[in-house]
Amino acid sequence: MKQYALGLDFGTNSVRALLVDCLDGSEVGVGVVNFPSGESGVLLDPNDPHLARQNPADYLTSTPLAVRAAIDDAQGRDTGFAADQVVGIGIDTTASSPLPLDERCRPLALSERFRGDLAAQCWLWKDHTAHEEAEEISENARALGRPYLAKCGGAYSSEWFWAKALKCLRTAPTVFRAARTWAECQDFIPAWLCGIQDPAQIRRGICAAGHKAMFHESWGGLPDEEFLAGLDPALASIRPQLYQLTHTSDQVAGTLDPSIASQMGLPAGIPVAVGAIDAHLGGVGAGVKPGRLVKIMGTSTCDIMIGDASTPDILGVSGIVPGSVVPGFQGIEAGQAAVGDLFGWFASKVSGREHHELEAEGASLPAGGSGLLSLDWNNGSRNVVLDPRVSGLFVGQTLHTTAAEMYRSLLEATAFGARKIIERIAEYGVKIEEIVVCGGIAEKSPLTMQIYADVCKRPMKLSGSAQTCALGAAIMGSVVGGAHPDVPAAIEAMTRVQALQYVPNPASLAAYDRLYELYSDLHDAFGRTERTPDLHGLMKELIAIREQARAG
Amino acid sequence: MKQYALGLDFGTNSVRALLVDCLDGSEVGVGVVNFPSGESGVLLDPNDPHLARQNPADYLTSTPLAVRAAIDDAQGRDTGFAADQVVGIGIDTTASSPLPLDERCRPLALSERFRGDLAAQCWLWKDHTAHEEAEEISENARALGRPYLAKCGGAYSSEWFWAKALKCLRTAPTVFRAARTWAECQDFIPAWLCGIQDPAQIRRGICAAGHKAMFHESWGGLPDEEFLAGLDPALASIRPQLYQLTHTSDQVAGTLDPSIASQMGLPAGIPVAVGAIDAHLGGVGAGVKPGRLVKIMGTSTCDIMIGDASTPDILGVSGIVPGSVVPGFQGIEAGQAAVGDLFGWFASKVSGREHHELEAEGASLPAGGSGLLSLDWNNGSRNVVLDPRVSGLFVGQTLHTTAAEMYRSLLEATAFGARKIIERIAEYGVKIEEIVVCGGIAEKSPLTMQIYADVCKRPMKLSGSAQTCALGAAIMGSVVGGAHPDVPAAIEAMTRVQALQYVPNPASLAAYDRLYELYSDLHDAFGRTERTPDLHGLMKELIAIREQARAG
Repeated sequence: MKQYALGLDFGTNSVRALLVDCLDGSEVGVGVVNFPSGESGVLLDPNDPHLARQNPADYLTSTPLAVRAAIDDAQGRDTGFAADQVVGIGIDTTASSPLPLDERCRPLALSERFRGDLAAQCWLWKDHTAHEEAEEISENARALGRPYLAKCGGAYSSEWFWAKALKCLRTAPTVFRAARTWAECQDFIPAWLCGIQDPAQIRRGICAAGHKAMFHESWGGLPDEEFLAGLDPALASIRPQLYQLTHTSDQVAGTLDPSIASQMGLPAGIPVAVGAIDAHLGGVGAGVKPGRLVKIMGTSTCDIMIGDASTPDILGVSGIVPGSVVPGFQGIEAGQAAVGDLFGWFASKVSGREHHELEAEGASLPAGGSGLLSLDWNNGSRNVVLDPRVSGLFVGQTLHTTAAEMYRSLLEATAFGARKIIERIAEYGVKIEEIVVCGGIAEKSPLTMQIYADVCKRPMKLSGSAQTCALGAAIMGSVVGGAHPDVPAAIEAMTRVQALQYVPNPASLAAYDRLYELYSDLHDAFGRTERTPDLHGLMKELIAIREQARAG
Repeated sequence: MKQYALGLDFGTNSVRALLVDCLDGSEVGVGVVNFPSGESGVLLDPNDPHLARQNPADYLTSTPLAVRAAIDDAQGRDTGFAADQVVGIGIDTTASSPLPLDERCRPLALSERFRGDLAAQCWLWKDHTAHEEAEEISENARALGRPYLAKCGGAYSSEWFWAKALKCLRTAPTVFRAARTWAECQDFIPAWLCGIQDPAQIRRGICAAGHKAMFHESWGGLPDEEFLAGLDPALASIRPQLYQLTHTSDQVAGTLDPSIASQMGLPAGIPVAVGAIDAHLGGVGAGVKPGRLVKIMGTSTCDIMIGDASTPDILGVSGIVPGSVVPGFQGIEAGQAAVGDLFGWFASKVSGREHHELEAEGASLPAGGSGLLSLDWNNGSRNVVLDPRVSGLFVGQTLHTTAAEMYRSLLEATAFGARKIIERIAEYGVKIEEIVVCGGIAEKSPLTMQIYADVCKRPMKLSGSAQTCALGAAIMGSVVGGAHPDVPAAIEAMTRVQALQYVPNPASLAAYDRLYELYSDLHDAFGRTERTPDLHGLMKELIAIREQARAG
């Protein structure tokens, strides 16, 4: 009998349910439901551009609809699929996206008392309200000589759990005090699916714990109480209500609750895997293995690798966590805070034009032909510089500069940022033998992918799946369902890379090498680095590059 | 009997004829004719964004039409005006806008042989093709210890005469060899109006000679032949065909030629004043006097002052020339290479929106509220840094930054640039007691003028005339026509300042002081200066300013 696995992928704007054949990973049914709250599923505050939340009620209403749609799709395709052949469910979500829960594991946001209170909602990954708290956490860790920053690149991020919890404590103490515990979205979803009502029974995934909450066995799990109390005594008080143990995603979080199963049209009792971060399971869905860097390129980009036990801590790279991607390996996570979001910002907020127009115009330029150079920090820097309080930059504009040229320079800026991460990882001795790209940008923007190949001087290979995060989740479902003995075996069977790839264009390499040097100067001049580059010649060098590019 | 003067103002896109009453400067008739050639009167080269030329045929065809229109207008207004009451004609043009002439003083561009040859046209002020030549001229002057740069701020500009002549010699030697002489547009127009056909009879104005061709009596007029030969022997060969004497604009260039007079509908024989640069006569039309800085704000901005004999050379300020504005005083010229052009670039090429929309949105922001900072160098820097090979810069963008915020930051950038010039002039001991603004931007953009008042911390007073350049030319016409004994007397009688003025808003001053410091850091980091500022904190300071501004 055929075996199927269900992957549930909780993104920024929607939930996606994907049914795959455990034999070869082929996709038999998909359902996507957009979250109904806020602006495309995100709750915003007009007075604070840093705020981004999600309404947890959206998860509860949208997920059964997405699963039903996937089942309908699979049945409509006449693949022989039947709902009782689903052997396991895997989950991935955005992170760090923590939410406060009550003593029955219900989100506070669902209660009468806190409905509509922004602090009681899920604090979405891209919420940057806690930048001061993040700075304070980094400073305290350094001042007290704690090792906690070693696994997260050397600085704590405003996107992460403790910064957000501390921010809630300081700005919404009523919500903070009302919470019995906090859970990452990746851990809340499996608990909800399995009908878990005791906070102690929520099985926490190592992925968000290790990458976002400074959990590491070498220092006894979460940061110690004394350290937390140094930030705020009330913060230390929640430590015992969190967790001492974490789990990898080849482990079972529980089994599907009967009432939810019936909403979904699935049998009750299906094993549900421990949750993980979307990008990490995206790495799994794109076939991550030692030597292969997977870039999940969407509104932001996550870079995922795995390494053996000898993998060192890498300064400026956001996470090195055992088992966070594939059990038995060190998970390495890096990333860029704005990629598709950056292009979207310029297209809609600045130029008022469509991506495809700007891309078509930009594609006709030679490398360096615009004379422009940009920094890709409109949403802060998540890696190498690791600082949320930096911003975007354009330089090189003349009175003839066009919107398409500026747009293209943003594509290039993210490619330079990508190269910086690749170089940093390689500096620490981790070998990158190939790069596989996936996600919306990889699928939709050939110009971007060609620029990445040219700037990084490596082929950009395309993942065989257009929904690698959900596929990665389904792979975990297949493992907990017993279809494969372990994650590497499931990856081997269920993922593939396309024959199509973007190959570096020799004509572009020299110009991009020169531009990358200038990018590095801007990066080091404006970012938190030791260097103070001399920028007096930068504008002239950009003009020289432009003139040479246009002369052909 | 009433006396009228005619001012002819040759701009980038059009010629304007203004008839004024010599008694009080009141404007009785105006005619404007757009130049028919190229793009809005400017000949462009799609392969070279630095190139900008004008077709001299446009002057010959458009000027009589503009004068006739002004006469019609004056007669239509029933002011008692009659054409035979015009006592004198004054001329102003853009500069440095030189054109090659044949042995009969005719533009080469009008000949069969060179029609359509871009090198034979008038090399418009904003043509920057000669940037390498300008650098070379500056370097040679320094290397050979010549004093020539002392009066033009310390560096020669690609906009100026010798750079353009040398560029023509190198890239279009046939044109260069065919020229019997070269004339600035300001000198060609009076010669043409007066029917002068002998190059030796062209009376050259001190204004362009001193500000654009390094003419100064202290070193014997134009740069010496040895110096020119060091650039190119052929360049030295044209020196004798140029001029040894120059004239101020209270002097007569000749009298109106009968055939041109009849095309215009004016009597022949009217005295025509020696020509001058538009901005300089704009200063005159705005009532320039010691202590009063006049800003002529259009596509670019010119700052005009006059000082007594003790006026020092000012490093980084483009010109100090005796008699170039008002005979008997030192003319001081500074300026910014892109102001209205910069706003227009962003509105049309980047945002695709209308000025008035962007301005209305931008006006609602508090000072510093955008978190943005820009450099105003999209067309190079004409002052302080004095370098055509610098470019624009935006910094501080987030994913929420709007086009209107970016637009406003450009307005602010030009105001910071204006403050830098004011501070530089003041550093050299030249007192600035008041600022009078005129030109299109001063008339049309209240937001820009308020920002200038706030950034410069001084009231911005508006000139009484909306066409100060043409009025300044008419003032020179009134002097050569005998209606006033000298230029200061004519200025006193014929100009005024409006009661309306823009007064600094105390609420904006602190934020702009902080932003100006950061602007100065960017300015010094990217411009040709001795300083290498530390920029590591700049983005954070912009965020702090934004947060404080938004908090109110």
